[in-house]
Amino acid sequence: MTEKRLAQQLHFLMEADKLKQVLRRTVLTDGSRRENDAEHFWHFALMAIILQEYADEPIDLNRVLQMAAIHDMVEIYAGDTFAYDVCANQTKAEREQAAAERLFSLLPPDQSAQYRALWAEYDQKQTPDARFSASIDRLQPLMHNYMTQGHTWKLGDVRARQAYARIELMRTTAPKLWALCDQILQDSIQKGYLKP
Amino acid sequence: MTEKRLAQQLHFLMEADKLKQVLRRTVLTDGSRRENDAEHFWHFALMAIILQEYADEPIDLNRVLQMAAIHDMVEIYAGDTFAYDVCANQTKAEREQAAAERLFSLLPPDQSAQYRALWAEYDQKQTPDARFSASIDRLQPLMHNYMTQGHTWKLGDVRARQAYARIELMRTTAPKLWALCDQILQDSIQKGYLKP
Repeated sequence: MTEKRLAQQLHFLMEADKLKQVLRRTVLTDGSRRENDAEHFWHFALMAIILQEYADEPIDLNRVLQMAAIHDMVEIYAGDTFAYDVCANQTKAEREQAAAERLFSLLPPDQSAQYRALWAEYDQKQTPDARFSASIDRLQPLMHNYMTQGHTWKLGDVRARQAYARIELMRTTAPKLWALCDQILQDSIQKGYLKP
Repeated sequence: MTEKRLAQQLHFLMEADKLKQVLRRTVLTDGSRRENDAEHFWHFALMAIILQEYADEPIDLNRVLQMAAIHDMVEIYAGDTFAYDVCANQTKAEREQAAAERLFSLLPPDQSAQYRALWAEYDQKQTPDARFSASIDRLQPLMHNYMTQGHTWKLGDVRARQAYARIELMRTTAPKLWALCDQILQDSIQKGYLKP
């Protein structure tokens, strides 16, 4: 029994290696190449650790980090959906549900249920842990966009109101981080990185 | 004061982006390219989450994940030291101490002290959290080596006794994971991935 359990866990963990090959639209801060989902997670986790004091509701960092670790794993099968691609976002939920089913069923039943639930919690953004996670998930590419003169905003012909819509949930969840993003967005408009 | 604090945190978090460019000797499980430190951390974190039940001493997963997030950050300045390079390992401690000093001093004083201490705890491998973290840090590349027919073992002309020395700390910290590694190493010797 234990052996079957460990074998299932290892299978899941080796399948996970594919996340290192799922490319995002975001580029590294030196603009040299596109970032992948595994790298994004590491940066997300580090940001959540260092910026946890800005959460305006009590959060459980352990849960936030676990949520961070699995939040993009469905993209192994569903692919990365560009945040500003309206058409792709129409089918995103369905594609990601199917991917979650396929991915988490590799785990032993108890862990499968546990991490599927954690992924769903992140996806629904109703709890403080999920909202803080989502705030950090928005902050990381925004910082990258600023450092790369608006690379992804230009790619998607993004307007300021769309960028502001992405960070709306930070306003109540982490108001100081929202204020930071507001400053960055205003400066980006001024510098021509982002269309007004 | 708050603004200076946030500015220091952001500086640290943007400097951190460089970890995505520090290449390890390990290659992805499909052998297509070398893995970087940020990707290694993500896989390490996921393994720690999924395999936490195999720790033979009580561990605090939150601390393990934070330790994982920062454990290789000194390599931004000190570079990756190949586990089987005897000469480079003679200067490793000194190079990494200097790098830790430089890196963590970017943070506000309280966080600088906190994360330098956490890094030192990992480095010294005396606490259950540090020992379990180090066990996972060994397991991840061992799995990659097995999946890539001994890629890094062949590169370093590694013998079985050296590979066993790397996992010695697992024997008491996570005996079931040690037994798994033992199986994998024996199979690797049989298949010619690793020299006896």
